[in-house]
Amino acid sequence: MPGSGTGAAGPELLVELDRSATRTLRAQLEDGLRGAVHAGRLAPGAAMPSSRAMARDLDVSRRLVVDAYAQLVAEGYLATRPGAGTFVAGTAGGAVSTGGPLASGGAVAPRGPAVSGGSAVAGVPATTGRTRSATVPPAPPRFDLFPGRPDLSAFPRAAWTRALRDVLRALPDHRLGYPDPAGVPELRGVLADYLARARGVVAGPERIVVTSGAVQGLALLARALAAGGPAVVAVEDPSLPDHRRALEHAGVRIRPVPVDDDGVWVDGLGDATAALVTPAHQMPTGVALSQERRAAIVSWARSGGLVIEDDYDAEFRYDRPPLAALQGLAPDDVVHVGSVSKTLAPALRLGWLVLPHRLVAPVVGEKLLDDMGGDALSQLTLARLVETGGYDRHLRTLRRRHRARRDALTAALARHLPQARVLGVAAGLHATVALPRPIDPLALDAALAERSVRVYGMTPRSLLVGYAAHPAPALDEAVRRLADALAEVGGATYPNARAIARPAVRPLNMHPPTKVPSSEL
Amino acid sequence: MPGSGTGAAGPELLVELDRSATRTLRAQLEDGLRGAVHAGRLAPGAAMPSSRAMARDLDVSRRLVVDAYAQLVAEGYLATRPGAGTFVAGTAGGAVSTGGPLASGGAVAPRGPAVSGGSAVAGVPATTGRTRSATVPPAPPRFDLFPGRPDLSAFPRAAWTRALRDVLRALPDHRLGYPDPAGVPELRGVLADYLARARGVVAGPERIVVTSGAVQGLALLARALAAGGPAVVAVEDPSLPDHRRALEHAGVRIRPVPVDDDGVWVDGLGDATAALVTPAHQMPTGVALSQERRAAIVSWARSGGLVIEDDYDAEFRYDRPPLAALQGLAPDDVVHVGSVSKTLAPALRLGWLVLPHRLVAPVVGEKLLDDMGGDALSQLTLARLVETGGYDRHLRTLRRRHRARRDALTAALARHLPQARVLGVAAGLHATVALPRPIDPLALDAALAERSVRVYGMTPRSLLVGYAAHPAPALDEAVRRLADALAEVGGATYPNARAIARPAVRPLNMHPPTKVPSSEL
Repeated sequence: MPGSGTGAAGPELLVELDRSATRTLRAQLEDGLRGAVHAGRLAPGAAMPSSRAMARDLDVSRRLVVDAYAQLVAEGYLATRPGAGTFVAGTAGGAVSTGGPLASGGAVAPRGPAVSGGSAVAGVPATTGRTRSATVPPAPPRFDLFPGRPDLSAFPRAAWTRALRDVLRALPDHRLGYPDPAGVPELRGVLADYLARARGVVAGPERIVVTSGAVQGLALLARALAAGGPAVVAVEDPSLPDHRRALEHAGVRIRPVPVDDDGVWVDGLGDATAALVTPAHQMPTGVALSQERRAAIVSWARSGGLVIEDDYDAEFRYDRPPLAALQGLAPDDVVHVGSVSKTLAPALRLGWLVLPHRLVAPVVGEKLLDDMGGDALSQLTLARLVETGGYDRHLRTLRRRHRARRDALTAALARHLPQARVLGVAAGLHATVALPRPIDPLALDAALAERSVRVYGMTPRSLLVGYAAHPAPALDEAVRRLADALAEVGGATYPNARAIARPAVRPLNMHPPTKVPSSEL
Repeated sequence: MPGSGTGAAGPELLVELDRSATRTLRAQLEDGLRGAVHAGRLAPGAAMPSSRAMARDLDVSRRLVVDAYAQLVAEGYLATRPGAGTFVAGTAGGAVSTGGPLASGGAVAPRGPAVSGGSAVAGVPATTGRTRSATVPPAPPRFDLFPGRPDLSAFPRAAWTRALRDVLRALPDHRLGYPDPAGVPELRGVLADYLARARGVVAGPERIVVTSGAVQGLALLARALAAGGPAVVAVEDPSLPDHRRALEHAGVRIRPVPVDDDGVWVDGLGDATAALVTPAHQMPTGVALSQERRAAIVSWARSGGLVIEDDYDAEFRYDRPPLAALQGLAPDDVVHVGSVSKTLAPALRLGWLVLPHRLVAPVVGEKLLDDMGGDALSQLTLARLVETGGYDRHLRTLRRRHRARRDALTAALARHLPQARVLGVAAGLHATVALPRPIDPLALDAALAERSVRVYGMTPRSLLVGYAAHPAPALDEAVRRLADALAEVGGATYPNARAIARPAVRPLNMHPPTKVPSSEL
């Protein structure tokens, strides 16, 4: 009997029955199902709900559903498979009309042969019977030298799954309800420990707010600042456009302040409400804030400014001991921003703010009004990974791999582009390459595209090369192609060996593969 | 031996042990447990963790836990039941003080209150006795009748872990980078299928934006609307305060429109930019929008209004076939809002908007500026769960359990409060209880608190009872206590049997357990 023998009840399916209508419920059900097949709401090969389940859902007798299924099997809309229930037949028109396959398919949905009468049809399980499928994002170009991407192949997939399993085995049911909007306490606890020992951050768990990546942290903070009246946030020039835009959109005014060889020009901060800075490794130039400037910016913060310290690649120092976070010097006047986007994966969207006490409640309030808190299971999984030592192990692996790739990149540049200067490689995930001769960025971008290479933050005099995501042979090949493209676009002799990247082509969006609605940005 | 024979590990209960202290760990554990019983954090009748589980959690020997349990059994704090492990004894003071049974205990408490803040007890899933720990959210009161909470004990923990494992086994590395801000295409694809077949929603994947819960969807949408100029969003009165606040904070003006027995008063929408409505099951009154009003609101939408349809408990219909979503009638003028907060768990923070084409780019732009997209791994895990049929199976289980609990609640009300009227129980997760006599909400709230019962949306004439999260015996006990509390606070004869809930005490925040910074809200 159709649908009667399966254990699985099959998919949810809406059919509306009008009990006040003159037509019988069975006729209405049959029409509803035919319509669903015609409209593609029921895909060829999809498993039908069991007759028992559908009868219960529609509050009709099971007999009625069995009869309706049998009628539609006879008409060729549905088919049965012994022991496996009832399926949508392989041709949408059934035996009634076209006789041939209605949709040509596509790799997603394997289809059965055309139906005649009630004979069995090779259906597919509900798992694969999708015809309506979105496009999976295109793979990046072969050599995408995006500067902010870590070695994603090192992501600890098995450890992450195990950590989630452990979390779900032990979590009390009520913790599956709405989470603490500041982040689950377990994660705030381990972050406080980690940031204190690894970065010198003064961070009781009560100061920490877990966010959906660093960008949400900046947006929440900017909204909290703007709620107190007009607010101006000084940003480094150059800096990440994504961050500037998120701040500005959240309601603060932006004031660009130049960056030189000693880092951001602290005297230029003036009376800004706050300053977003990257003291340990300026993004994108790679310079570290000098000792003098560090003292000056702490003093600026203590006299009423708020420093927002984006500690974006703190974990990756190669040739020198890490600089402690500024926050440790003035925890009541510095916001520390971090995330796992460079240490685990941007896909996780896990970041945090360490806040002066006075800003905690306003930022948590913004978080609650924005999304009522983040995914508790991901947060607990990260907490578990840190607690079991898996996170620290992963960081050590990643640092070793990134350093080897940094060395491979500098070797490749020395080999293929010996006249270029390489800057900012003491730390981080990318190098700034000062070009031997000024070039036309648009022409170079096109020449690189032909060679399946993509670089970012290009100016006539420099470009950025992210190395962390690529193994040594790929870096060598990418740099060879870069040298080849540079030779093709030519240019005058480069007049000044010193270059600061000022994004002109393909700015440093952290989000390169997505088509952003440009009207909105 | 106490706690040794059970399969279930029992509730999480971590006692903070100070290894640097001079007192023995066993003495500390015993004191911690006595304190938890005295403070009511361990309710009479609650099952204790197995000795094995507690030893693992605390990182102590199992022998130590067994001995501590035995000591507390001897003192009358704990009791054993052959073959079923160790329980908190029926008297709160143990052998020390009152001597009388506080609650009948035993079978009633399905899961003991797991953990709570404070000095003695801190809960961390499967993690050990950390001394630097943030406060874990307090367990809810014993009978927390929050109206929006599903049966979280049904969450498919093993299936969720398996789905993540499958996802991580197959995912290309580059997918660990920044996700599509509209949501991963796999999830948008299966949601399009699911919403079409289960809700009659016209939803190509290109119309869908995955959000961090329904609230973020509303916030993003409101920002997109406000970007076009001053915008007014009509909301039902009464409705969820969380939603109103999120909309208002995102920059739109709110216009309350009354709800009567036919649902929202459509004539009151007027020239509003948009209207947030719950047509299938009004939140909180439980009425369905009448056929006439459905036609009227679709016509209002087609003539320039935008309907925002919050389909918040679409999956739970008990006595009638589901009403199709309004969106299917006017997909270019209706936004459909959904989430898994009522079907899987609020902790996942997974929701979606199905948008008219013209709103997709603006909303994706807002998402990008807010958090650059949601957690791709959670989204892919949900997509996998839907594709394998696990989600539909879970829904059937949940619907059956919720229906049985709904029946248990109505039976309990008939038994203990026969004069009350019960409204809005054809669907959803809660009932509106019209009280036999008007009461003082503050007095009732206090009387209920003494009985460890919490209800929501209370007015002098009605209150809401969420039933989905509680098994039948707990519902019976909670209603018995409610009747007892009502008898205590008394009140005049109730003049009118018809009541619409207008929240006065403990409004319907979806986020009851969290201390919201009240200055911000």
